Amino acid sequence: MKNAPVENEIALSPNFDANTANPQWGGRFASGPAAIMTEINASVGFDKILWRQDIKGSLAHAAMLHKVGLLNETELAEIQQGLSDIAQEIINGDFTFSPALEDIHMNIEARLSERIGEAGKRLHTARSRNDQVATDFRLWVRDAIDGLLDQTSALMRSLATRALEYHATPMPGFTHLQVAQPVTFGHHLLAYVEMLSRDSTRLHDARQRLNECPLGSAALAGTSFPIDRKMTATELGFDRPTANSLDSVSDRDFALEFLSALSLQAMHLSRLSEEIVMWASAPFGFITLSDAFTTGSSIMPQKRNPDAAELVRAKIGRILGDFTALITVMKGLPLAYAKDSQEDKEPVFDATEAMTLSLAAMDGMIRDLKPNEARMREVAGMGFSTATDLADWLVRELRVPFRTAHHVTGRLVGLAEKKKCDLADLSLQEMQDVEPNIHAGIFDVLTVESSLASRTSFGGTAPKNVQHQAQAWLEKLG
Amino acid sequence: MKNAPVENEIALSPNFDANTANPQWGGRFASGPAAIMTEINASVGFDKILWRQDIKGSLAHAAMLHKVGLLNETELAEIQQGLSDIAQEIINGDFTFSPALEDIHMNIEARLSERIGEAGKRLHTARSRNDQVATDFRLWVRDAIDGLLDQTSALMRSLATRALEYHATPMPGFTHLQVAQPVTFGHHLLAYVEMLSRDSTRLHDARQRLNECPLGSAALAGTSFPIDRKMTATELGFDRPTANSLDSVSDRDFALEFLSALSLQAMHLSRLSEEIVMWASAPFGFITLSDAFTTGSSIMPQKRNPDAAELVRAKIGRILGDFTALITVMKGLPLAYAKDSQEDKEPVFDATEAMTLSLAAMDGMIRDLKPNEARMREVAGMGFSTATDLADWLVRELRVPFRTAHHVTGRLVGLAEKKKCDLADLSLQEMQDVEPNIHAGIFDVLTVESSLASRTSFGGTAPKNVQHQAQAWLEKLG
Amino acid sequence: MKNAPVENEIALSPNFDANTANPQWGGRFASGPAAIMTEINASVGFDKILWRQDIKGSLAHAAMLHKVGLLNETELAEIQQGLSDIAQEIINGDFTFSPALEDIHMNIEARLSERIGEAGKRLHTARSRNDQVATDFRLWVRDAIDGLLDQTSALMRSLATRALEYHATPMPGFTHLQVAQPVTFGHHLLAYVEMLSRDSTRLHDARQRLNECPLGSAALAGTSFPIDRKMTATELGFDRPTANSLDSVSDRDFALEFLSALSLQAMHLSRLSEEIVMWASAPFGFITLSDAFTTGSSIMPQKRNPDAAELVRAKIGRILGDFTALITVMKGLPLAYAKDSQEDKEPVFDATEAMTLSLAAMDGMIRDLKPNEARMREVAGMGFSTATDLADWLVRELRVPFRTAHHVTGRLVGLAEKKKCDLADLSLQEMQDVEPNIHAGIFDVLTVESSLASRTSFGGTAPKNVQHQAQAWLEKLG
Amino acid sequence: MKNAPVENEIALSPNFDANTANPQWGGRFASGPAAIMTEINASVGFDKILWRQDIKGSLAHAAMLHKVGLLNETELAEIQQGLSDIAQEIINGDFTFSPALEDIHMNIEARLSERIGEAGKRLHTARSRNDQVATDFRLWVRDAIDGLLDQTSALMRSLATRALEYHATPMPGFTHLQVAQPVTFGHHLLAYVEMLSRDSTRLHDARQRLNECPLGSAALAGTSFPIDRKMTATELGFDRPTANSLDSVSDRDFALEFLSALSLQAMHLSRLSEEIVMWASAPFGFITLSDAFTTGSSIMPQKRNPDAAELVRAKIGRILGDFTALITVMKGLPLAYAKDSQEDKEPVFDATEAMTLSLAAMDGMIRDLKPNEARMREVAGMGFSTATDLADWLVRELRVPFRTAHHVTGRLVGLAEKKKCDLADLSLQEMQDVEPNIHAGIFDVLTVESSLASRTSFGGTAPKNVQHQAQAWLEKLG
Repeated sequence: MKNAPVENEIALSPNFDANTANPQWGGRFASGPAAIMTEINASVGFDKILWRQDIKGSLAHAAMLHKVGLLNETELAEIQQGLSDIAQEIINGDFTFSPALEDIHMNIEARLSERIGEAGKRLHTARSRNDQVATDFRLWVRDAIDGLLDQTSALMRSLATRALEYHATPMPGFTHLQVAQPVTFGHHLLAYVEMLSRDSTRLHDARQRLNECPLGSAALAGTSFPIDRKMTATELGFDRPTANSLDSVSDRDFALEFLSALSLQAMHLSRLSEEIVMWASAPFGFITLSDAFTTGSSIMPQKRNPDAAELVRAKIGRILGDFTALITVMKGLPLAYAKDSQEDKEPVFDATEAMTLSLAAMDGMIRDLKPNEARMREVAGMGFSTATDLADWLVRELRVPFRTAHHVTGRLVGLAEKKKCDLADLSLQEMQDVEPNIHAGIFDVLTVESSLASRTSFGGTAPKNVQHQAQAWLEKLG
Repeated sequence: MKNAPVENEIALSPNFDANTANPQWGGRFASGPAAIMTEINASVGFDKILWRQDIKGSLAHAAMLHKVGLLNETELAEIQQGLSDIAQEIINGDFTFSPALEDIHMNIEARLSERIGEAGKRLHTARSRNDQVATDFRLWVRDAIDGLLDQTSALMRSLATRALEYHATPMPGFTHLQVAQPVTFGHHLLAYVEMLSRDSTRLHDARQRLNECPLGSAALAGTSFPIDRKMTATELGFDRPTANSLDSVSDRDFALEFLSALSLQAMHLSRLSEEIVMWASAPFGFITLSDAFTTGSSIMPQKRNPDAAELVRAKIGRILGDFTALITVMKGLPLAYAKDSQEDKEPVFDATEAMTLSLAAMDGMIRDLKPNEARMREVAGMGFSTATDLADWLVRELRVPFRTAHHVTGRLVGLAEKKKCDLADLSLQEMQDVEPNIHAGIFDVLTVESSLASRTSFGGTAPKNVQHQAQAWLEKLG
Repeated sequence: MKNAPVENEIALSPNFDANTANPQWGGRFASGPAAIMTEINASVGFDKILWRQDIKGSLAHAAMLHKVGLLNETELAEIQQGLSDIAQEIINGDFTFSPALEDIHMNIEARLSERIGEAGKRLHTARSRNDQVATDFRLWVRDAIDGLLDQTSALMRSLATRALEYHATPMPGFTHLQVAQPVTFGHHLLAYVEMLSRDSTRLHDARQRLNECPLGSAALAGTSFPIDRKMTATELGFDRPTANSLDSVSDRDFALEFLSALSLQAMHLSRLSEEIVMWASAPFGFITLSDAFTTGSSIMPQKRNPDAAELVRAKIGRILGDFTALITVMKGLPLAYAKDSQEDKEPVFDATEAMTLSLAAMDGMIRDLKPNEARMREVAGMGFSTATDLADWLVRELRVPFRTAHHVTGRLVGLAEKKKCDLADLSLQEMQDVEPNIHAGIFDVLTVESSLASRTSFGGTAPKNVQHQAQAWLEKLG
Repeated sequence: MKNAPVENEIALSPNFDANTANPQWGGRFASGPAAIMTEINASVGFDKILWRQDIKGSLAHAAMLHKVGLLNETELAEIQQGLSDIAQEIINGDFTFSPALEDIHMNIEARLSERIGEAGKRLHTARSRNDQVATDFRLWVRDAIDGLLDQTSALMRSLATRALEYHATPMPGFTHLQVAQPVTFGHHLLAYVEMLSRDSTRLHDARQRLNECPLGSAALAGTSFPIDRKMTATELGFDRPTANSLDSVSDRDFALEFLSALSLQAMHLSRLSEEIVMWASAPFGFITLSDAFTTGSSIMPQKRNPDAAELVRAKIGRILGDFTALITVMKGLPLAYAKDSQEDKEPVFDATEAMTLSLAAMDGMIRDLKPNEARMREVAGMGFSTATDLADWLVRELRVPFRTAHHVTGRLVGLAEKKKCDLADLSLQEMQDVEPNIHAGIFDVLTVESSLASRTSFGGTAPKNVQHQAQAWLEKLG
């Protein structure tokens, strides 16, 4: 349905006139209510994506109807053959999707009756489109989660691999984008592994919560047929049937939870993308991306633009938009099924596609990027980045209270600033003028490397910590 | 780009196996970075919609280049012919859009060079894709606004026409969905004309603000060529060229303002849709929609579901989602152009389509609906809906202070409630027991009809007011 | 900070002049940068809410510093006494919160040094405000989750209790707000128990994921002090320390996941509220709310407005807004800590408050509402609501294929519509004219009660199902 | 109402126990429905901000009631005196706002009756809280717009002033955050003046659209009293009365349009803030902010963190959240007034405050920042930033088609890259090896300064253009 205006426009416009605006969009509907209703109501244009899930659900339903005596052997066999043939038609591109039949479910059922007659008309016994679509869509979202979990693991693996490679490579750690303390590039990359690992568990939780089968809830009230909902649930890989038929046909939590989990994940990727864009910028000069993930300019021949990173950064927009769209749709809907919830699928499809692309592109960029270690080391030492080490030394060696140590350090930084030198370039005498007990041992903590090596607290940036963490992740990820 | 997974999936899956999930999405990218980059980067899949605008912009640019001496007569003629031929190719469906050429702009330019050689390579003089796409997209949004303004006027006309028809038809006026005071059905419909008229002026304002031409801003800094930006602006129907080249290529306000205006309009339509759904529900029974705007059920043969109204109600979701998407994309982007802003088009196309459909469907429903006047009149009299008239009578006739009148009325309502009768069914004596000065004149104000007739204040629901307003709107709308 | 303009305005305006607008807001800042910076930067106005968590965190930190030898016995004792005294000052309202000290953390630390001198200055050893605030805020959110889980259970209990009470009470089941099939009022209420139970597990999952302790991550890189992060984690009830110091200080996932879970829950409550508002409306007349949860009108004395339900319905807005606010803030932030994330708290406090109120009000309304059983029964029989039962009978008794049964039923409904009678009022002959095999047994399935009783499939609306489900929930909830 | 939990918590917790979580929030409501209802329903906690507007509106209403004979001279005088006295009480802090009286309107009216008796009870004649609150809130938003317009102009003035100062100062122009072409710092600052000027006109348009007076629409249907709505409209500075009473009491477009305009403006400020944060970062080193707009670190004494810029960058979150909140509230509300719309005020107050602070802080930073011209000039020359000038020279001087010139330039850049030199450092011979017709004139266009000077197209970055634009803005802004 999306972006349809132009398709129509092209069809409607036999002669091009550069001075004419688009034909009025409303003009499409001149033929009256039927045209409008078909266009706003039919969903097969996008829900045909569910054809596999629909056929899979129908096969499970038919097997169950047979088991409880509502279909005989022959009927079951005919339905199975018919659905299998339809699947083949779709795969071969021979299936005609008809908007007049509204959605994928009616398209397939109609075709089934066309192919096998009577038996086909028995398939819809003890179900309704309301529970059918809820089942199909859950199956689709479950597949999407599985695909994205795999991709997320792959990206985590790439990050951990690069982190291991650079577990001891100094880079500036920023707070407020001001140089704060040295960290290692590996440590920085592992921060994103942590974020992605939370994203993974969120997707796992969402998968577990959605894994209940609404099939058999019928239109809204259950059914008087002696169906076996546990059987269809098991057949389709669900943990159990849903417990309340009204809820089953009106619930879209599984889609919303999926979208909210993707929103957080997209936010994480937006942060990493922002860093990649900034790192690749001339003033930073921290990394280089190869031509594989950059593009040129139509007017400036020298540019290597990090388009992929920028596009990944932007995807948070559409995914958050998709979440906003669906939760707004669901606001205030009375039970049970309302047609409003037909607006559930496009946001989910769109967000899945955006995240699939984002993860693939980010994985590619992480494998691809080349750090400029010299430049990162240079900036890591800027701005008195070991001042905290100095303060901590005062606490540890001289047992100065931290707040006092902080104050002493502030004075020494001020002095170095005035002299336009680094902290390590101050003389012992100059230091002792501020705090008489300082001794030469202090110079051991003022280098970037010593600072890094000292951060051995759990979760700290010390190279051996980072190496260990990266290895642990790689083992865990297999 | 949207919904792409399935298309790929179908192509990739030669054999159907009901027990297999979707192929892993990531699998698409096994062929490496090039496949990912093409897929995430290429925009021609959706921006081909801009082909008319792109050609129109190029024609204006070429004419200007000729005027200022950067193209000679022959070159201009070749370009004009070439672009015209390309337009015809697109209309005829003979044009091959290539993702390898990224976007519609490069597709058309490449084809032009292919067709006319050297002259085609001169077209991009003194412009960049950055100003080109900004120009094309503004032209598209301007066309979209014009189309939606027409549709909005049409809907206002339909509402005013029905309002005139029912200017004296009583219905319950609700606050908190409790019967409050009688109003007329026409008055209620005109409330939506007011909302839509604000929507119209918002779109007009947005159109006026966007109507500046970025063409000639080049990549970001302007150009050294002696171009005439006023000429191209005029040629393309813009009021003037934009004033700052950096802003010109990085601004997407025009799209955001358009989306925010549509969000408010969609909100209005969601309210009207909600009312239509409720009015068509059995307990209300206020209106009937014909088969043209309702659908049946797959399991309950008697249903007439107001699907069109429900779908219009839901569109606020996707349009608000589209706005959220784009403003989130724009958050925190440094100047000037960033690839992130390629994410500007799909939300705008999607929202335009959603609003086009919504307006068409709503217009259809408004023309189609049949009010059940008897039922509306019945409910209009429920719940002591003329209590305010009684209170006002006490103020007007007896000069009781309003707060006291309010209190007296409360007691009379309590009495009627206890007696399970209407206010008009209380005896004069019973009334005088509460407030001795009440006289028989009070019974004149207790009917629904007298209540309606009395609300003659400007903007009030009195039938003659409503008739006048409806007529005034119809005249204004032509 | 919220709503501050007026407070200032009142202070600044010694004389009231009805014709004067608000003093210009900017006027507040006439005194220069210092005033602006204090106002935009200081957070103690809202983060003082964290005082308990801050003190609790400091006590755990101090105990750990003592254990690893960074504080001696006396210093620890002084700190413990000092913090306890400060807690008492706050409880007594004797503590002066100073914006000049920016936030709650510095306010408390400064006061501690003021009270106990040297020892107080040692407390900040091996920590930073970055890990401190992350720890405090996690503790607060964890408490909030615990509170909301209790409230959610209480509401589920009230719903299940009323569901048991009305497990056999017929009401119309709607789809598209059209009468579809009879359901029981208990079944309808239990649908919301299902939704709330998903909300509960989502909150549980969020709690589990947040339950890692960032304390000891220091500014961003960890620390060189020999701290014991496991000890502080355990002390504060966390499952473990966080694993990466950069992530620890820049992560706000726990707040976002909490807000997204509340958004879904608020959406559920908006649906129930919408139904309450509609059910209480005259045309429906399904329920009555007592004065406890309704209000009157300032002009219409007879009104009983369901204000509480309307306000709960609206809370989805602010909670979704809070989620949108925070995720937008986090978009694209480079690591590690950025001041932007100070905007994390107000949305969380606001959403917690909104949900607390909503759950309390909804619980009150559910306990309070009185169903009008006669009216619900009446509407349950409207619109041929047992048509599906008729179709199912044809399938079950005559082995007519479902699609054919659907068609036959459609003709019978059409006949009844034309005769303006119910399905049960058609004669056997009339039915046989449509389908000759129909026999008198059909009349057994055409009543509301028989329809309800027959829906015995798992999750279906049969009274015995509903009774069983309600009892099961009550047992589970204790 | 916001952040209330803690206030209550403090009050409820006489003894501090570090191991105890917050008291359960729900515990607040143990006293039953009344406590819940007061807390969720009463709005005086936040809507007392409207007291000036409420009194102003009441004075206008009273004057009108007198004019049309519904109040006599004495009553009017008493009301005027009473309201004036109440204003003084509020200013003096002597007014007790009572939640039991729900909102500011009832608080003031009750106090009026208390003070002046009978006459006070007549004030509410021919109006309702529904039109009263709509009027008050419009007045407040109008004042807010006026204040923000002034602040916006002030910021534009500061930007234009700095732009004039630096109209010829080279800085790198970025696209994709890659150095693209030189621009001037003044040109860059003026881009934001353009954005803010659009923000201004959007606020102006919103002001104009809101400037209709709902007073006299009464509850929803108008009134039977012979009121003069034009008089009150004029008195209150409105252009005219609103035209439809149902729309008047249920419309919140004016608030939504205000919030959407602020969302766009906040987005602009987020972009400028992002740039300030980045420019102030060591690797960029483009600007320095003084201590007035930076803060230190609790652990790293040398930091100068651009907190103000970060906080302004974040405000887009809360303002967009406020817009999302209100539009979600309004979705699907049936006419006329619903209590849901009481949720309209807090988002508007919050967004106004956030924008007021943001504009003040940004204005301060713009006046405060010191550019490091040497560093900006250095980066402006990086990355072959004059490559476009070279390409344009080929087109202009040699009449090479642009696409060919682009290709030639690409080869020259490649050569310079290989030689690790600038374009200007290539010899003429080396250039001629690529394109034989190149002559020595080419070296004139390869410097940053010549590039800047050449961009004289309208809106281009040439210093004389920028100077002219800055002066024009300063004149226009006065």
